[in-house]
Amino acid sequence: MGKFIKKFITPAISFMFLMSMTNVGMAESTVSAEVGFIFNTLLFLMCGFLVFFMACGFAMLESGMVTSKSVSVICAKNIGLVSIGAIMFWLVGYNLAYGIPEGGYIGKFVPWSDASKIDTGYADGSDWYFQMVFCVTTVSIVSGTLAERIKLWPFFLFAAILAGIIYPIVMGWQWGGGWLAKAGFSDFAGSTLVHSTGGAAALAGALLLGPRLGRFTKAGAAPIKPFAASSIPLVTLGVFILWLGWFGFNGGSQLAIGTAPDAIAVSKIFINTLLAGAGGVMAAAAVTRLTGKTDVVQMLNGCIGGLVAITAEPLMPSPIAAILIGGVGGIIVVYGTKLLFSLKIDDVVGAIPAHLFAGIWGTLAVPITNSGVTFGAQLLGVVSINAFVFVVSLIVWSGMKATMGIRLSKEAEMKGTDVSETGVIAYAIRD
Amino acid sequence: MGKFIKKFITPAISFMFLMSMTNVGMAESTVSAEVGFIFNTLLFLMCGFLVFFMACGFAMLESGMVTSKSVSVICAKNIGLVSIGAIMFWLVGYNLAYGIPEGGYIGKFVPWSDASKIDTGYADGSDWYFQMVFCVTTVSIVSGTLAERIKLWPFFLFAAILAGIIYPIVMGWQWGGGWLAKAGFSDFAGSTLVHSTGGAAALAGALLLGPRLGRFTKAGAAPIKPFAASSIPLVTLGVFILWLGWFGFNGGSQLAIGTAPDAIAVSKIFINTLLAGAGGVMAAAAVTRLTGKTDVVQMLNGCIGGLVAITAEPLMPSPIAAILIGGVGGIIVVYGTKLLFSLKIDDVVGAIPAHLFAGIWGTLAVPITNSGVTFGAQLLGVVSINAFVFVVSLIVWSGMKATMGIRLSKEAEMKGTDVSETGVIAYAIRD
Amino acid sequence: MGKFIKKFITPAISFMFLMSMTNVGMAESTVSAEVGFIFNTLLFLMCGFLVFFMACGFAMLESGMVTSKSVSVICAKNIGLVSIGAIMFWLVGYNLAYGIPEGGYIGKFVPWSDASKIDTGYADGSDWYFQMVFCVTTVSIVSGTLAERIKLWPFFLFAAILAGIIYPIVMGWQWGGGWLAKAGFSDFAGSTLVHSTGGAAALAGALLLGPRLGRFTKAGAAPIKPFAASSIPLVTLGVFILWLGWFGFNGGSQLAIGTAPDAIAVSKIFINTLLAGAGGVMAAAAVTRLTGKTDVVQMLNGCIGGLVAITAEPLMPSPIAAILIGGVGGIIVVYGTKLLFSLKIDDVVGAIPAHLFAGIWGTLAVPITNSGVTFGAQLLGVVSINAFVFVVSLIVWSGMKATMGIRLSKEAEMKGTDVSETGVIAYAIRD
Repeated sequence: MGKFIKKFITPAISFMFLMSMTNVGMAESTVSAEVGFIFNTLLFLMCGFLVFFMACGFAMLESGMVTSKSVSVICAKNIGLVSIGAIMFWLVGYNLAYGIPEGGYIGKFVPWSDASKIDTGYADGSDWYFQMVFCVTTVSIVSGTLAERIKLWPFFLFAAILAGIIYPIVMGWQWGGGWLAKAGFSDFAGSTLVHSTGGAAALAGALLLGPRLGRFTKAGAAPIKPFAASSIPLVTLGVFILWLGWFGFNGGSQLAIGTAPDAIAVSKIFINTLLAGAGGVMAAAAVTRLTGKTDVVQMLNGCIGGLVAITAEPLMPSPIAAILIGGVGGIIVVYGTKLLFSLKIDDVVGAIPAHLFAGIWGTLAVPITNSGVTFGAQLLGVVSINAFVFVVSLIVWSGMKATMGIRLSKEAEMKGTDVSETGVIAYAIRD
Repeated sequence: MGKFIKKFITPAISFMFLMSMTNVGMAESTVSAEVGFIFNTLLFLMCGFLVFFMACGFAMLESGMVTSKSVSVICAKNIGLVSIGAIMFWLVGYNLAYGIPEGGYIGKFVPWSDASKIDTGYADGSDWYFQMVFCVTTVSIVSGTLAERIKLWPFFLFAAILAGIIYPIVMGWQWGGGWLAKAGFSDFAGSTLVHSTGGAAALAGALLLGPRLGRFTKAGAAPIKPFAASSIPLVTLGVFILWLGWFGFNGGSQLAIGTAPDAIAVSKIFINTLLAGAGGVMAAAAVTRLTGKTDVVQMLNGCIGGLVAITAEPLMPSPIAAILIGGVGGIIVVYGTKLLFSLKIDDVVGAIPAHLFAGIWGTLAVPITNSGVTFGAQLLGVVSINAFVFVVSLIVWSGMKATMGIRLSKEAEMKGTDVSETGVIAYAIRD
Repeated sequence: MGKFIKKFITPAISFMFLMSMTNVGMAESTVSAEVGFIFNTLLFLMCGFLVFFMACGFAMLESGMVTSKSVSVICAKNIGLVSIGAIMFWLVGYNLAYGIPEGGYIGKFVPWSDASKIDTGYADGSDWYFQMVFCVTTVSIVSGTLAERIKLWPFFLFAAILAGIIYPIVMGWQWGGGWLAKAGFSDFAGSTLVHSTGGAAALAGALLLGPRLGRFTKAGAAPIKPFAASSIPLVTLGVFILWLGWFGFNGGSQLAIGTAPDAIAVSKIFINTLLAGAGGVMAAAAVTRLTGKTDVVQMLNGCIGGLVAITAEPLMPSPIAAILIGGVGGIIVVYGTKLLFSLKIDDVVGAIPAHLFAGIWGTLAVPITNSGVTFGAQLLGVVSINAFVFVVSLIVWSGMKATMGIRLSKEAEMKGTDVSETGVIAYAIRD
């Protein structure tokens, strides 16, 4: 969450939450301003490096999910998008989001610079770092969906636009205190702002790009052997790293740990984040087992779906609610994947079900556990952000398609993106 | 360690330890209750996420150690057991352990709920999170031993029982302030409570399940080529992640970092944890080199053995004692592996030597460096916990064997668990 | 940075830096000595475990870069060198560095022991832990360069000498307050002390060892297929882990987070570390693309080069300066790799360009952004440390070559180091 929310909304919610739900019963904090400043900065840095590591999680998940002909390129995309995202978020993004007028639509085109003050409550740079890794996460979501057929440098260009312009604009609407925040929308850590944004941008790209050659037959949409995931343990590694990082993603979004109530809140968020992921895993396991074999890929993607679902409100739900919210997220992933298949949309890693669909669910579910939030406001946020991101992304992808081209040649795709784009094969283990 | 130990024993030990061994010489802490509360909560959350990540370490270690026909299933087991363990520890486990009467045998069947108070010294949720990851670690130990022949869902059922009932009961005996704690048993971070418990439950399963088809010939127990580990780098990755997580495992078991003496103690624990792992690695390297080639798998498992050994008492040993305790742990792993071979017990990843055997050693070694602990009390704890866990596990496994069956069919085992259980092959890298 | 720098130089710089560049404007810190003590200890432990994890990053990077016949051995080397390094740094290293007389050349041969005092500002053990992982990093750099042809145990012996003697001596010169510190040399987190030291030791070894059989033909130095990297995703994983660890490496080198100015400084260091890595990635991507295909290996190594370059001064540069310093580091990696090829020096993983060459650049670039440092002092440090480490390493390697031998037999090299040294093949995934 952003500065606006931090200053005007979080303290009130935390206070009400704690007064009603715990026995802490403190009058006022006894922590000095400087000690609180250090605690909050530590929280941002610690949670920030956990979220940074999520970029590695996406890289591993995607490396494992693509076929073995497109692994080196997916590695190049992931290390590249982190770099591009970080630079763009410094150059334009941060102040495009946080430089927004109250209730407004867009901020300023000014690079970020350090403006730490003791009464802000944290080092300005630690907040930039924490917000930057959210921006990078948004971009990470896109790379997997479009794998195996998109050109490398057009992807990099889109990453720069998404990180520098599209994401910061919607971020400002809410976390910068723009018009959506004023309208009562609530998205604690970004089910919609981060995850649906990434998913919607990916969907726009997938539609324009088309599926991989041979992916869908006239008869239907059965996955066929040539599209088998290159390494399930890498996918597993990726999901574990993402789950780990998510404690930082949601926990750090409390934005403060300089008082006992904040420490209690961060702890509760850790627990709900854990349980929602667990619910997603086991729901996907049960659903796939009941209709066939226990699908390990759906369990892993179900974990992501559960985590995305709880991200809109990881503080207020009870543990059982967190398990259920996450469980529904996991089920959405399983059936969302089937839906995309039936529509012949080729999402190589299942990012659209896990991030876009589960993000919509999580955001709309907030009023269930948080009585201060209305369904109408949630719907407004979901529709406006997804529509904006999808349409703008479609325009950008279309422009790129018309000019530089975004899809590899048939020959390059048949040979594999690794050979055509980097010349480095991913696995040389038969010597 | 648990609440009981925390309140009544640790402060006294820490105080004595510091008065005798350092030059700190502080009168009383100058840290306010709320600042201490935040520090302790931060310790639990930080060390907790490190221990959470150990689940990924186990998943990678086991993925690398099994043959390439059983990798997808081991991934499913590991992401599943974390989920099941977390849910069960919330639903039953925590209060079964901590709701125990003083000196008693079993706690209450009540789900955990947040009861944070400023004078507990930490956010209740952060303690739950930290204890939960210990519970999950116990279950992680079991999955590797039984790989390649156990059915997926019976394993999940056992995981639920171990996480929800068996582990919490023994945890309550000691860390909940039950009868073992009263009897003077000492197990700082769980050489016996966590590691031997996992190992004993795995041993019971391995005995009932029998070895993999063709694993042992009449002539003897030589490992043959079809059982080669699928990926040594994944094993290495797993062990590095486990070593990293172990700093949280042992360091967080100090349960507090809100005073300078506690900060000094946590630092000392980090060092001993490092050096014991180092001792385990190099002892296993030396022993295997002296009798043949330097065995990288034994070095990696020796690291685990060294870490398990120091876990019962990571605070009091000097650095040289830590190296030696860990080194013996590493040697135990090498010869324990040979012993299991000669007994024709099939432990796919070597978890029984590393966790059960090295855990016994570490627990019995506590009196060497901690004069306040008797050998008799340690022996009582080791025998009672291991016997209880082994017998109850044997009953549970037997009941499952008699009803639903726990072993895959011969045909399924020959085809590989990946094909029979998930239908997803692990490595598709020859396209 | 070391104790000397910490006590006499950092506070002054931090103060000046903050007075000039931020709006904090605090009079004096309001944080009590004990609270500051805990914060600083937490910083060392947290940043320390991140740097510890870098050892895993190196293990993965190197496992992925060597051919599939030498992966198990590189795993053995990496888990072994961490163990050896940790033990040696306790036994000799720490006091060889920090027991140095002011302005002197060498410290004392005494094992480290805990001497925590509240007025030191942090737990002594946490500082040992943090410095130890730097020592281990230095050794990690060497293993990759010499892969696929060096004998295992001679490598371990060199690791012990580097960790116990060579690195601690140069560390003492600067961070122990020895003659180089007195001469005005500046190396915040070790571009030269850690990275060039590792690179220079590796270069000495590579020259004496010679290239792998068949690596260079008479015609030139084109890499040929048998030397293809075994797994690009493992290399990517390694680089992401290293980048993550680098936040601890540079951030922890502020050595304190117990005041608001320190918290602001650590945050700034995180940002510059991020942006320099990003600059390295994209510079390498651009340079390789302009002259051929976008080389993913160079992007990944370029990241390392960028990170090494910023390590000498991660606090003072502006964000744009950090991007440029890192970008030059990335370009140096690309052309440094070509240079080594043309000289027929076989550096299997590219550690010499990334650590030695980029380390020289980063150290010499300090005066650009830090006006308190002279180019002459920097040149003195670069030349003296690299010359000392290179010459001593050459002597040690030569002595070992003349006595026990350092290179595998031709037969062993042809079969692969995995078979000859450990008897464990790395990938058995065709069953």
